[in-house]
Amino acid sequence: MASVRIREAKEGDCGDILRLIRELAEYEKLSHQVKISEEALRADGFGENPLYHCLVAEILPAPGELQEPCVVGYGLYYFIYSTWKGRSIYLEDIYVMPGYRGQGIGSKIIKMVAKVALDQGCSQFRLAVLDWNKTAMDLYKALGAQDLTEAEGWHSFCFKGEAMRELAGR
Amino acid sequence: MASVRIREAKEGDCGDILRLIRELAEYEKLSHQVKISEEALRADGFGENPLYHCLVAEILPAPGELQEPCVVGYGLYYFIYSTWKGRSIYLEDIYVMPGYRGQGIGSKIIKMVAKVALDQGCSQFRLAVLDWNKTAMDLYKALGAQDLTEAEGWHSFCFKGEAMRELAGR
Repeated sequence: MASVRIREAKEGDCGDILRLIRELAEYEKLSHQVKISEEALRADGFGENPLYHCLVAEILPAPGELQEPCVVGYGLYYFIYSTWKGRSIYLEDIYVMPGYRGQGIGSKIIKMVAKVALDQGCSQFRLAVLDWNKTAMDLYKALGAQDLTEAEGWHSFCFKGEAMRELAGR
Repeated sequence: MASVRIREAKEGDCGDILRLIRELAEYEKLSHQVKISEEALRADGFGENPLYHCLVAEILPAPGELQEPCVVGYGLYYFIYSTWKGRSIYLEDIYVMPGYRGQGIGSKIIKMVAKVALDQGCSQFRLAVLDWNKTAMDLYKALGAQDLTEAEGWHSFCFKGEAMRELAGR
């Protein structure tokens, strides 16, 4: 039987990661917002000072099977800084392809992120989820996460390009 | 008349920054969550690979006045990574002491963050605000920010220490 492996992404995975980033954005009904390229992902994640880190989930073929391992999910994170708790992790994206859900791959990615966080001296990790995505919300809660928007009232704000240029007087 | 200057924080500002972090957390009614120390702020923000950057707002005495410049506000940010837009900035905290509000100091800090973001090739910056803090919400909206929780339904989730250790099996 095929098995699943969660491992650190390599530069050669960027094509697969971009494919999954686009699938996730489509699932979130926000795919018009994706402007990133494979080249940017390569440069930004695999240089001397990487701007992000990434885990991929791949299906390993059973012994004797001929196909290549296939990347079916990812978790992309980076380090942030809480003025209350210090160094922390932000899990920007987590995604598993529809045909591979229900096998615990998402949970495995989250567990791996928790291990990385602890190894790096972080005392928490944050992520964001869309309110209609009940499956994801229920999973994160079942794994012990707290919904801070619900519990404390946090709203996420964003200054985008146009607003930023206006603010900067450019 | 006294004037306001926004400048990059120096290591020697960490005492003032911690004082303001505590004031902000108190204002947010969440001060029991503050675990950071001045030593950690010094080490984390002013080493070789700083985990955060900080702007401070200080009141400069009028010519001839004897008092020292006084730090009355701050904006603490770091670089994050959007899988849609690439390198971005997250403004973790922004705060101005109550006695110095209504003079546009908060807006000045936000404008400076926008300039830094553009200079660093970022196409957006994000921040979070509590839903009962209408003054702040109205200010950010007036400056051109979008409330992504309202517009798209984003909820902020957090795995804290206990949950993380359980996930990691430790």
